[in-house]
Amino acid sequence: MKIVAVVLSGGAGTRLWPASRQAHPKPFMRLGESSLLLQAVQRGHACGSDDVVIVTNQEHVHLTRTELKQASPSIRVHYVLEPVGRNTAPAIALAAMHCDKTYGPDTVMVVLPADHLIPDNEAFVANALEAAALAREKNLVVFGIGPTSPETAFGYIEVEHVSRKSQPILKFVEKPDLATAQSYLATGRFYWNSGMFCFTARSILDALSQHSPETASSARRVFDHASSNGDATHFDNALFGTMPDISIDYAVMERARNTWVVPARFGWSDVGSWPAVADAHPADSVGNTFATDVVALDTTGSHVQVESHGTKVVAMVGVKDLVVVDTPDALLVAHKASAQNVKRVVDILKSRGHASTHLPASVHRPWGTYATLKEEEGYKVKRITVSPGGSLSLQYHHHRSEHWVVVQGSARVQIGEREFLTEPGQSRYIPKGEKHRLTNVGSDELVLIEVQCGSYLGEDDIVRLADCYGRV
Amino acid sequence: MKIVAVVLSGGAGTRLWPASRQAHPKPFMRLGESSLLLQAVQRGHACGSDDVVIVTNQEHVHLTRTELKQASPSIRVHYVLEPVGRNTAPAIALAAMHCDKTYGPDTVMVVLPADHLIPDNEAFVANALEAAALAREKNLVVFGIGPTSPETAFGYIEVEHVSRKSQPILKFVEKPDLATAQSYLATGRFYWNSGMFCFTARSILDALSQHSPETASSARRVFDHASSNGDATHFDNALFGTMPDISIDYAVMERARNTWVVPARFGWSDVGSWPAVADAHPADSVGNTFATDVVALDTTGSHVQVESHGTKVVAMVGVKDLVVVDTPDALLVAHKASAQNVKRVVDILKSRGHASTHLPASVHRPWGTYATLKEEEGYKVKRITVSPGGSLSLQYHHHRSEHWVVVQGSARVQIGEREFLTEPGQSRYIPKGEKHRLTNVGSDELVLIEVQCGSYLGEDDIVRLADCYGRV
Repeated sequence: MKIVAVVLSGGAGTRLWPASRQAHPKPFMRLGESSLLLQAVQRGHACGSDDVVIVTNQEHVHLTRTELKQASPSIRVHYVLEPVGRNTAPAIALAAMHCDKTYGPDTVMVVLPADHLIPDNEAFVANALEAAALAREKNLVVFGIGPTSPETAFGYIEVEHVSRKSQPILKFVEKPDLATAQSYLATGRFYWNSGMFCFTARSILDALSQHSPETASSARRVFDHASSNGDATHFDNALFGTMPDISIDYAVMERARNTWVVPARFGWSDVGSWPAVADAHPADSVGNTFATDVVALDTTGSHVQVESHGTKVVAMVGVKDLVVVDTPDALLVAHKASAQNVKRVVDILKSRGHASTHLPASVHRPWGTYATLKEEEGYKVKRITVSPGGSLSLQYHHHRSEHWVVVQGSARVQIGEREFLTEPGQSRYIPKGEKHRLTNVGSDELVLIEVQCGSYLGEDDIVRLADCYGRV
Repeated sequence: MKIVAVVLSGGAGTRLWPASRQAHPKPFMRLGESSLLLQAVQRGHACGSDDVVIVTNQEHVHLTRTELKQASPSIRVHYVLEPVGRNTAPAIALAAMHCDKTYGPDTVMVVLPADHLIPDNEAFVANALEAAALAREKNLVVFGIGPTSPETAFGYIEVEHVSRKSQPILKFVEKPDLATAQSYLATGRFYWNSGMFCFTARSILDALSQHSPETASSARRVFDHASSNGDATHFDNALFGTMPDISIDYAVMERARNTWVVPARFGWSDVGSWPAVADAHPADSVGNTFATDVVALDTTGSHVQVESHGTKVVAMVGVKDLVVVDTPDALLVAHKASAQNVKRVVDILKSRGHASTHLPASVHRPWGTYATLKEEEGYKVKRITVSPGGSLSLQYHHHRSEHWVVVQGSARVQIGEREFLTEPGQSRYIPKGEKHRLTNVGSDELVLIEVQCGSYLGEDDIVRLADCYGRV
């Protein structure tokens, strides 16, 4: 029985702003030992899947590759790259077509969102194998979570009686209002829909054809026009946009008859908002979860995390049940009871075009990262890191000169037709209009401070002449 | 009648951390148009005093001079520089001796703490002239504030009946507990003691001799051994330390019989803690006072201010009556009701040796300022500003090299025996151990980015060979 983990890495996680941003979304958030994404990949691997299919936005492929350098070396990752987000039905359809074609129609797909937290992999694997056995019997399986509160953020699954055993599903129901959720809990007949599934490629493709033929046929057209590039499948942008924006629950699960629920016997969180992040941290005796240096007086039930350019202390005085998340360009102070409204903050900032909704304080590039330390009229100071072997594109700028001071590692700096080895404490000057290139030729990370001077300092003043990452 | 304003610039303002710090204390905090210190000097000037005496710690003289460049040009400032803080009685004694000697014994001194907020100068002046008339009649006058709440942070002044007219004082009482303060308010016989005084130099010196002869004689000894250096009086450190640490209230006012109160007919705040700072800002319809870019949802009665290296947005969600003060190296989140406890935070951080209690994010020097943008193993990045005509000392470092990139203004850079004019977009390299000097030769502020590289980057690795500000 071939098992393949399919990791859906699409969630934006706007409720987790300012840590989660469009260019550095929730799956990349570190919670515990590693990012949620890496944990999801390792979880899939633990089910016996050496092949992992990741469906993600093509914008995030470099960041994902960087993140997965830390994954077990026996894992083979295949990237299914979406030009735009199109909900779970198209994503699962394309992943299923890839599995069908590559590993055969009877491949058991374990579908895992990349932004869930499941601390106990062993318990998960036991459940997953149970689900896989049901999937081989042509069932469409969903993992159900025993509800502990009348959540309105989840869909629900109705069965005869909630128990610890797998059973056929009577009905899927959409996210309820609070009163309905409370009534569901009272009946003892409902699970939360976890969004984790298990089925064979053939079963889900058959079900899609039967219950959502439009999704099935448009996805087939998109897949048939895909181009493969090593470990990645790319799609045609225009064709991709013709697929309906529809969830797998609505497209298939609510309509199919061969659906089963496997009740989760593992701890699970969808890390949907800041209180859930707090719950995932060890708390002190008064319920505080501090992921940073905090001086707390008369403070209880509060969560604090900081991401800053230097060492920063936080003082909390006489407060209760707050979430404080600090980054260099945005600070959130929210009451836990209002944490869902962080999404509205992001909407407001987006409408203003505020960069903090899109770019993280440290921006990832295929070659490394950059962070802006200071920007004022006429100049900008960045800290740039380049991974070993990494190389920025050969480029020039119309409107700015640049000074590079290497502070760690070894750089080869090309300026015009000349090349210079540049070591810590040494600097290079790149005049406006001069072509240049930066390469890490050492075995450690290269760190340099860049001072840009000029009348215009936008990221778009960059003319690429050559690039290792296909960005010319 | 010669009037001289005496500004006592000694308050640490630890309750206003992290905006107020030992090297950048409360008088330098900007509230409204300018710093509290500048406002106090202008207030004294408005009373008809062209001569202003500032008693302050010698550590703050450069910062004070820089701040007072914005004062009315007709003001002549004299600096009485304390090597250590020694409470108000010694400070007033030394200021009185200076006034006695320089302007004559009948000089009327208007004593103003540098960290109070009085928005209406005109109303203040009318009161001050009334106080000056009483002072000429050999009275010791204190400004009393009509109490609006049972404050426990102030001393109280008892009279026959609180009214809008000046009257003799029956009794000074020390800071009461809450119950006592409440009973004071109920009687209608008490003012708050504002800490602002008015008397002639002769009256207060006589009163000191009579009621606190030890203070008078030790201050006389300190003053007789003082050295004058242009507009500043310096004292012998060891002698200075022999003066008692005693307030003018305790040393004189509580014991003297010729004390009068002038009731303040002006708005007044001692800006004692963050809620007082909030009160000094215009509030929106739900009581928020935002001194920065804030997105607020369901948030009331809260104060937010930010001091950062770039533009930073703050989101407040579902909170009430909070104070949020953000700086690059420290963030405070406090409930207004607990704002007095910020002092305890500072005590805790001091005991840990945390820099945020001492140095501000932007450190003032006689030649300008510096701020650390980033510090990691092996390097440090600073933003340095130099005022027009300003010049750093001729210096060298044992353990670090430096790169200077000029981003605004014009610099003359001496390296070894050579000098280089350096303009925006140009850089200079100073090898480890090489003597160097930076001078602003333009008419605008000079701004440069410094990248230090080396194994040790402490501020104490500086060997000064020559200095315009007497720091060799």
